[in-house]
Amino acid sequence: MAVLPEPPAERPVLKYLAGQLTSATDQVVVEEPLEIRLVHGGEEQTVAVTMRTPGADHELAMGFLYAEGAIRNTAEILSLSRWQEGGVEAPNVLRVELRSGFAAMRSLSRHTFTSSACGVCGTGSIERLAVRATPALWTRPPLAAEVIGNLPAQLRREQPLFAATGGIHAAGLFTADGECLAVREDVGRHNAVDKLIGWALAQDLLPLTDHLLAVSSRAGFEIVQKAALAGVPVVCAVSAPTSLAIEVAESFGITLAGFVRGERFNLYSVPERVNSGGRALDSPA
Amino acid sequence: MAVLPEPPAERPVLKYLAGQLTSATDQVVVEEPLEIRLVHGGEEQTVAVTMRTPGADHELAMGFLYAEGAIRNTAEILSLSRWQEGGVEAPNVLRVELRSGFAAMRSLSRHTFTSSACGVCGTGSIERLAVRATPALWTRPPLAAEVIGNLPAQLRREQPLFAATGGIHAAGLFTADGECLAVREDVGRHNAVDKLIGWALAQDLLPLTDHLLAVSSRAGFEIVQKAALAGVPVVCAVSAPTSLAIEVAESFGITLAGFVRGERFNLYSVPERVNSGGRALDSPA
Repeated sequence: MAVLPEPPAERPVLKYLAGQLTSATDQVVVEEPLEIRLVHGGEEQTVAVTMRTPGADHELAMGFLYAEGAIRNTAEILSLSRWQEGGVEAPNVLRVELRSGFAAMRSLSRHTFTSSACGVCGTGSIERLAVRATPALWTRPPLAAEVIGNLPAQLRREQPLFAATGGIHAAGLFTADGECLAVREDVGRHNAVDKLIGWALAQDLLPLTDHLLAVSSRAGFEIVQKAALAGVPVVCAVSAPTSLAIEVAESFGITLAGFVRGERFNLYSVPERVNSGGRALDSPA
Repeated sequence: MAVLPEPPAERPVLKYLAGQLTSATDQVVVEEPLEIRLVHGGEEQTVAVTMRTPGADHELAMGFLYAEGAIRNTAEILSLSRWQEGGVEAPNVLRVELRSGFAAMRSLSRHTFTSSACGVCGTGSIERLAVRATPALWTRPPLAAEVIGNLPAQLRREQPLFAATGGIHAAGLFTADGECLAVREDVGRHNAVDKLIGWALAQDLLPLTDHLLAVSSRAGFEIVQKAALAGVPVVCAVSAPTSLAIEVAESFGITLAGFVRGERFNLYSVPERVNSGGRALDSPA
């Protein structure tokens, strides 16, 4: 009944539990940009780039076009296929031809979105990000594992809206010693991070060398991307990371911790920045 | 340390627990669109509409503009204020003047997004949605509360990627009797719903009269909006709803259930469609 999307990706991980780090393999969700391009006559136009898990892409495009009012039924789609360039199929770009043609292109260009992701592949998005990223520097001694483990509890203490509603995300900025500098809550986790970076910008704290960003949510491309732009060297998420978030973290020298829950967490990139308390770190293969 | 955003909104709710419904008041997160408009010379351009929790809006705009590469520091912002129209301040629209002016407008128009939400107010978004929404019809006898309570467990059984990774959302479509028709998983909860509606569209099932949509996540504006467009009369979320999601559900006659967890759930709108098992429903005030 369920259509299995892309199988999870396997990633090396260091699992921290009560003072010990162990090498393991983790299964992480695949996140890749999907670009939807409308074509009409000789014209083409990107009407959306969404970060998605590959699989059921045609359904995703149809559902998206329906929600945006571009189609009322599938008969209005003349063709829907992978983008071809020089005989090569782009797995993350869909080509859509609609009966309504130019009218749909005009209306969608106002109501839909593109993003700083690039649909051709996740790597393309990383390359584009590289132009603007700030080096993630850590000038201090290795970070104590306890500092990471304690972040969710510290974050929670500064989440009055979560306490009241159970339905809001938070992002917090911390020093290398685990001191909480600021927390922002928002219904959108990307907004919580934007509010936090906006605050840091107003305080003239950028680049955020030697700082930690903690989020109450998963760590997706968008979150780690914003960290890379602000020069944050350590990102800690209460929940799971995605494949692309790990790639971005590796590319920009960011230590990415996921499933951070007190006595335990997983390290997905740049683990040498963390000191587990005496035991030498064996780096993930 | 934390800047308190908009306080939570109070909403009447019917709490279902093991066969009984009780009237109560719930605190829900406020969700409203924020529109960011750049101005330069005589020109103005909307560069983003994001669904956010009001509060720290200036920080949000600064963080957003930084992430999009439009500014490197706050000195590049000439002015940042609420939009004024006829002497009245629009609480959900920010006016931004940048030193880089027209160049920023050009680059942002390609990389950022607008959405089907309208920044002037949440009500404006509902009015725009009304033009395209499909009536949410329920032609069957009232829905058994157990059908709602069982949805998360049924959904979970069709989430192989969640089982493997712990980091992915799902959306499922169910009949009035609780039969699962399809489940789609995706890293983005809006994508999971788009995939599901795209599937239903291809099966020629729309409008989704007498169907239930279950999501593994919170219920925000975006989710309930997509349900309204597809004519889904019952939306059930494992986690919290937002203020705007409840407003949309009420406006379009959708029964919205939140915190659905087996023996318990909350009903936020159109509760008369649910039969708790003999006891008369007292409607929320």
